[in-house]
Amino acid sequence: MSREQRIRVDEILRQPGPEGPRSVEEIRAGFRQLMAQMIVPHSSIRTAPTTLGDRPALHVEPTRAPDPGADGGPDAGTILYFHGGGWVFGSPRTALSMTGNLVARTGLRAYSLDYRLAPEHPFPAAIEDALSAYRALLDRGEDPAAIVFAGDSAGGGLTVTACLAARDAGLPLPAGILAFSPGTDMTRTGASMDTKEGIDPVFTRAALERTGAMYLAGADPRQPLLSPAVHADLTGLPPILIQVGTNEVLLDDSTRLAARASAAGVDVILDVTADVPHVFQSFAGVLDEADEALDRAALFLRQRIRGGGAGEVHKRKDSYQ
Amino acid sequence: MSREQRIRVDEILRQPGPEGPRSVEEIRAGFRQLMAQMIVPHSSIRTAPTTLGDRPALHVEPTRAPDPGADGGPDAGTILYFHGGGWVFGSPRTALSMTGNLVARTGLRAYSLDYRLAPEHPFPAAIEDALSAYRALLDRGEDPAAIVFAGDSAGGGLTVTACLAARDAGLPLPAGILAFSPGTDMTRTGASMDTKEGIDPVFTRAALERTGAMYLAGADPRQPLLSPAVHADLTGLPPILIQVGTNEVLLDDSTRLAARASAAGVDVILDVTADVPHVFQSFAGVLDEADEALDRAALFLRQRIRGGGAGEVHKRKDSYQ
Repeated sequence: MSREQRIRVDEILRQPGPEGPRSVEEIRAGFRQLMAQMIVPHSSIRTAPTTLGDRPALHVEPTRAPDPGADGGPDAGTILYFHGGGWVFGSPRTALSMTGNLVARTGLRAYSLDYRLAPEHPFPAAIEDALSAYRALLDRGEDPAAIVFAGDSAGGGLTVTACLAARDAGLPLPAGILAFSPGTDMTRTGASMDTKEGIDPVFTRAALERTGAMYLAGADPRQPLLSPAVHADLTGLPPILIQVGTNEVLLDDSTRLAARASAAGVDVILDVTADVPHVFQSFAGVLDEADEALDRAALFLRQRIRGGGAGEVHKRKDSYQ
Repeated sequence: MSREQRIRVDEILRQPGPEGPRSVEEIRAGFRQLMAQMIVPHSSIRTAPTTLGDRPALHVEPTRAPDPGADGGPDAGTILYFHGGGWVFGSPRTALSMTGNLVARTGLRAYSLDYRLAPEHPFPAAIEDALSAYRALLDRGEDPAAIVFAGDSAGGGLTVTACLAARDAGLPLPAGILAFSPGTDMTRTGASMDTKEGIDPVFTRAALERTGAMYLAGADPRQPLLSPAVHADLTGLPPILIQVGTNEVLLDDSTRLAARASAAGVDVILDVTADVPHVFQSFAGVLDEADEALDRAALFLRQRIRGGGAGEVHKRKDSYQ
């Protein structure tokens, strides 16, 4: 149904950049330029700079309360969003298409965190910032059952590793995790790293290893907070929705995370769309699959926030004999 | 959040039946009795007996049109539903909790097919009936892009095998496939066949092999229409949503179907809920996870039907630069 759209998106992403390796600043500027093309639902959201923990963040809220629906009143809850960019580039602004669309579709507010980036601040700086941000929300009295983590790419990886860090710090966990094409394996051992090379219009192994090395800064990738899909005990994590395309060298970061989480007793939805690229949800308004995926993501987030409230939604539980 | 509900459902399903092997009629009566306890949303649906192809069917329609929503007007489309029961027991009535909940949640109408059962009518009778029913819908002029297949357990398997049969007969394919805990491997080679024995409150390998033998009637299970998760070329199938619990010996029927379909270029959502049994969606109104899963299933069905209409939903596709 959207075959032409899929081809068009692939072409946009394949537009050649400057020849040869680029500096970190060139990579950051190129990504800003690419993501500035994405459609932000400005009429449905209001944004304001703020801070969370010790870091800048973008506060994103719906301009109007969502349709109250059958279960009474708008949902109250918070999306803690982590942008993508290989732990080296990107910002809350570059992810605003996705954060904004989630806010517009759920009626939840979001904080999109401007966590520290490599190479200036390598692993585990980003995870520390994510954990501090979550702790700041809890310290304000927010109910963890009304907080969900969401993120794309490297930020999708942070949804998982920040949650592991929170668990290991003895904090109560958020109500759910939403990860778009998460980066979850710095060992780069997924079969898709090779089988999708060339099919993936965004990444090559070489490009990933270059920025990856900035984040690693010599750390052994074979550890839970760097390769959770391969090395983490995921026990106790809240329900996870993973969305990924098949035109991705990082596809198996998602499939292995899903299998590992499910084996650990976690509720997991692995939502795979064929023939779309890395973080295709950023093409909302352009690609039908992006809008449909965001609608599914929004339903998942609302279910998790409501689930945290335990049972307001379904009134008839006690009528069963 | 629904830990107590999950335990209660497990206990209901573990209630001991009569000792020793039962006759086919005893199995059928026991299943009728079990499923008669499920909550049917009678106030939201209207049912009427009908025929489809050469077989009886139950027509299920919503009593009122769904909320028209942002994209104008109720959805028009048809769910072709296949009940569960190991190809030996069950009927449209035993699956009415699920069929009715899908109709109530989507505003789509459904035909739930009373396909022929083994041992009186072994493989491939059920698939022939499913294909005839689909052909009957097409012969009436229904748009395949406004038809989805849905089913549970053995009927979940039929959603896939009927679609393969339709493809191989050169028919246009339906817009989507929804499968609850589908039975997709008569070779019984999934690891979960052993790892979930005892954890599964419904099935044992021995019980599955007994009714399975009635359906096989000597046929080699190593063929696409008997074990599509292991032996079928799934190329060309429409998007599939598979929902399954982890307390199932049939879990790997789902995980392998998902992996195989995705490898064949099919859009696939594998939606795994931990610690719930086979076809837990039948516990709608009792188990929060059942209602939430049905809500996700309903969104998927609406997206598929709308997708078939190609682009009415998202108006802004052309605003992208």
